Amino acid sequence: MNLMMIGRQAQDASRELALLTTEQKNAALLACADAMENHAAEIIAANEKDMANGIEKGMSEGLLDRLKLSETRIHQTAEGVRQVASLPDPVGEVMSEHQHPLGMLVRQVRVPFGVVGIIYESRPNVTADAFSLCLKTGNAVILRGGSDAINSNLAICKALQEGLKTVQINPLSVQVLEDTSRETVNEFMKLKQFVDVLIPRGGAGLIRSVVENSTIPVIETGSGNCHIYVDKEADQEKALNIIVNAKTQRLGVCNACESLVIHEDILTEFLPKLAERLGEKKVEIRADEASRAVCSAFSEATEEDFATEYLDRIISIKTVSDVSEAIEHINRYHTMHSDAIITENQANAEQFLKAVDSAAVYVNASTRFTDGNEFGFGAEIGISTQKLHARGPMGLVALTSYKYQIIGDGQVRP
Amino acid sequence: MNLMMIGRQAQDASRELALLTTEQKNAALLACADAMENHAAEIIAANEKDMANGIEKGMSEGLLDRLKLSETRIHQTAEGVRQVASLPDPVGEVMSEHQHPLGMLVRQVRVPFGVVGIIYESRPNVTADAFSLCLKTGNAVILRGGSDAINSNLAICKALQEGLKTVQINPLSVQVLEDTSRETVNEFMKLKQFVDVLIPRGGAGLIRSVVENSTIPVIETGSGNCHIYVDKEADQEKALNIIVNAKTQRLGVCNACESLVIHEDILTEFLPKLAERLGEKKVEIRADEASRAVCSAFSEATEEDFATEYLDRIISIKTVSDVSEAIEHINRYHTMHSDAIITENQANAEQFLKAVDSAAVYVNASTRFTDGNEFGFGAEIGISTQKLHARGPMGLVALTSYKYQIIGDGQVRP
Repeated sequence: MNLMMIGRQAQDASRELALLTTEQKNAALLACADAMENHAAEIIAANEKDMANGIEKGMSEGLLDRLKLSETRIHQTAEGVRQVASLPDPVGEVMSEHQHPLGMLVRQVRVPFGVVGIIYESRPNVTADAFSLCLKTGNAVILRGGSDAINSNLAICKALQEGLKTVQINPLSVQVLEDTSRETVNEFMKLKQFVDVLIPRGGAGLIRSVVENSTIPVIETGSGNCHIYVDKEADQEKALNIIVNAKTQRLGVCNACESLVIHEDILTEFLPKLAERLGEKKVEIRADEASRAVCSAFSEATEEDFATEYLDRIISIKTVSDVSEAIEHINRYHTMHSDAIITENQANAEQFLKAVDSAAVYVNASTRFTDGNEFGFGAEIGISTQKLHARGPMGLVALTSYKYQIIGDGQVRP
Repeated sequence: MNLMMIGRQAQDASRELALLTTEQKNAALLACADAMENHAAEIIAANEKDMANGIEKGMSEGLLDRLKLSETRIHQTAEGVRQVASLPDPVGEVMSEHQHPLGMLVRQVRVPFGVVGIIYESRPNVTADAFSLCLKTGNAVILRGGSDAINSNLAICKALQEGLKTVQINPLSVQVLEDTSRETVNEFMKLKQFVDVLIPRGGAGLIRSVVENSTIPVIETGSGNCHIYVDKEADQEKALNIIVNAKTQRLGVCNACESLVIHEDILTEFLPKLAERLGEKKVEIRADEASRAVCSAFSEATEEDFATEYLDRIISIKTVSDVSEAIEHINRYHTMHSDAIITENQANAEQFLKAVDSAAVYVNASTRFTDGNEFGFGAEIGISTQKLHARGPMGLVALTSYKYQIIGDGQVRP
């Protein structure tokens, strides 16, 4: 099927979706959840093909586990779709309203984007998750998943389309690109005429490729080189707990801590305790010269370490002489995701909150809280690391735009 | 000077600007306005070079007029800068605030973008206008104006930098690219590491080039193929007044009307009156077959006419059989800028408001009102025709992003 046709179909569907009531959209989500469960056997059969291909290609155990779908996982995904039905609908909200001096009403109203494109990697549950958030906000969605999960994604999409049919909603509100080739994805990124926004979800290489090639407006998500600065006036026990949590509670996530910045005055007291606590968790510490002078067991940190998102049991340490130097170091090496200061000094906390240029800036708490559910959005389409449109965890509102409606009685511009 | 250096300087300046109070920024704007007036002689001398080059190159009278700076125009531009100082500052606004179940305060605060890039064409007053809006919102700005106005732009920039120095603000908060070559502008569009958002202002070709080449997030502005639909139940006198205003009050602007969509049942009654009113204004009418059957004097409209933003004394007419067909035609040919329905039928008005996918949708008023000042923003950086981040006229808020500040007391993620 040709991409122009897919784009046109999505746009046509989006115009129908924009007119639906919240009740109609919720009913559709419930029907889609049911359809996924009713078609679980087909979805699992398709997933078995992907698993067999993965095993043949020598995919790692971790990736195979992410790929695998079972009756239970399908049920959980369907429950996620039902959960989205229960969230408040942002579409239609009157964001502002005023009267023009000539008497017209000028109203700013929240509306769907139209067509959302999502480019993502292996996990097939993203297919249903992303669809549910888009449908709730009245958007049609075109999904381009990874080739590893193509059979699973197509089967899930088919089930969702069946669900939409049962409530008389255009099944082309959700489409999965069958052709996962590089040429097709490059062409997809230029489908500006039909796609209003493109959201890449995945590794740094995928994100970079989308940013460089897309002519559709992109919301960049993803990589997190998150820092924790331990101030001279830190409560060191809090600092240790927060560091252990942010580094080790889950390793492969974008809000995990990758680098520590430590005030030089507390090195001698703090580093041995840190070495012990991180040692228990088998975390390798790569440190600058000043830190190694205190703990000779640390390995050496290079410039490259400071810029690396390890997603592993490794952490770097940089020593600074005050909060300003800490801020400068963080603003140079971070990915504008999440950074924290541990301090009991109010002025230092305020300077850090204001000057660190990240989506989420913390005082005395773990960076692991940067998450749509933790921020109270009920769902998350990704975490934006750009400043345009949405920043940080993106809930349903991030999938909407607005329009102005002007209601007059014959007014012309003088 | 190399672009990386310019980018780095702008980013450094932006970090200082982000910490300024509203009072400091306002004082800076007033100092810059004074500096422009104090350096009027140098600015005019530089402008004379541009004017001489323009005359030599055979620039049209209209373009030369847009390029020319006089003592009066410099004073008006300085007054514009002072006006921006008097507007409310959106930075620092707490957009939302709630307590996480574990006790942290989660606060969403409006912040500057950081560094804004603006690519624009001939008019040199844009240099001071864009700078003032960026400074007010705590953003550093890199301006890439047209080669025709380069001497004027550099002289204005120098005056603004002098103004910043008098209030001890980093003068590199505003920089004009001296090299206006195509290679340099292409390199500028890839300065993602330092520039947070890029706003092109100018013709369709400029905008397209930026959208296709930039890796920096872009806010697309500009072109307006605006429609007015005259419904069967229109007050025809209102319709005529609105059409004449929207088409002829100012020809070369993006919110001017370019195309009419008319209900077939009123053709015989409405078209002769329309022909008379537009005839008085010397507007050429290009119409579809049904309209020409009523008024044989109309010339023929092609598919291409329906997609054309004339910016001239020309208008096209398409006949439809109901409001749904009108909406479908408009959504196919418009540029998502501004479109209007003229009707006394409430249901038709509501359908149009909801289904037409434009930044501004009107009932019984002229499309000419799509403008930052008319919408009450006090200033305008451009009119967005995309749906990401900002839509329609963009005031100061459109030049801001937000960050989350999380204030805890040792919380870790369970």
